[in-house]
Amino acid sequence: MSLLTFSIKGRSENATKFVAQARQFELIVDEPASLGGNDEAANPVEYVLAGYAGCLNVVGHLVAKEQGLDLGGLEIDIEGDLDPAKFLGHSRLDRSGFQAIAVRLIPGNQLPKAKLDAWLREVSDRCPVSDNLSSETPVELFVSTAAYARA
Amino acid sequence: MSLLTFSIKGRSENATKFVAQARQFELIVDEPASLGGNDEAANPVEYVLAGYAGCLNVVGHLVAKEQGLDLGGLEIDIEGDLDPAKFLGHSRLDRSGFQAIAVRLIPGNQLPKAKLDAWLREVSDRCPVSDNLSSETPVELFVSTAAYARA
Repeated sequence: MSLLTFSIKGRSENATKFVAQARQFELIVDEPASLGGNDEAANPVEYVLAGYAGCLNVVGHLVAKEQGLDLGGLEIDIEGDLDPAKFLGHSRLDRSGFQAIAVRLIPGNQLPKAKLDAWLREVSDRCPVSDNLSSETPVELFVSTAAYARA
Repeated sequence: MSLLTFSIKGRSENATKFVAQARQFELIVDEPASLGGNDEAANPVEYVLAGYAGCLNVVGHLVAKEQGLDLGGLEIDIEGDLDPAKFLGHSRLDRSGFQAIAVRLIPGNQLPKAKLDAWLREVSDRCPVSDNLSSETPVELFVSTAAYARA
């Protein structure tokens, strides 16, 4: 199978609010007041966690079907801690992103532990967002010296 | 500064659609028809890219303020390629997530290259989502053998 390309493009509305277009969908990102925003939308790292949950849901159902497991629905809770000191420019010492991410998956049906463990190993191994968060990914950033065209 | 905790929780609506709650915000994730969904919302990896853009916008404006740069707005395009073979269970060979991510930042004002390069280095270094994508992050997954309580 060939590579699939995914992309978003968007523009800042102010110093914290960003409006991204992903195909026909508009995704609005902001920050809570405690991080300098107007709290008009979920914040950047909440977007990442929601995408991670969505990915686990898709792969979870795909693998369940392969393994003949009837999940009966799937609840997913994800939590991560980060130290804002580096992002805010107060420290150079620590990493800026999540130091760890914890995921809890709760199927709607009660299922045997051995089957769920086998399911979870496969889901974790095949989930694209799990891969990008748990492993290194080359990221290249370019900045343009030409201003964008005003709408 | 102490650690900040971010979290989402949500539930599958079907095998591809997931409804996540991030504080007071609802984030809906789906897949396009080509990946088995009903295309009712942006897909998981588009959520990750939108969160990344939102993060670069916040840090970009913060650093610009520190450096006395007037960006005059910021356009951000992000693109990534992934091979769906592993995620779909057709191959064990490759990674499942984005193999690389390319980011283009275009300020609204025309600015000198040296200033933009210094700005970009700092932004890239301090952006939490950049950190989580470009470096390893410990991810722990737990599955519950008890079914969730039905609403």
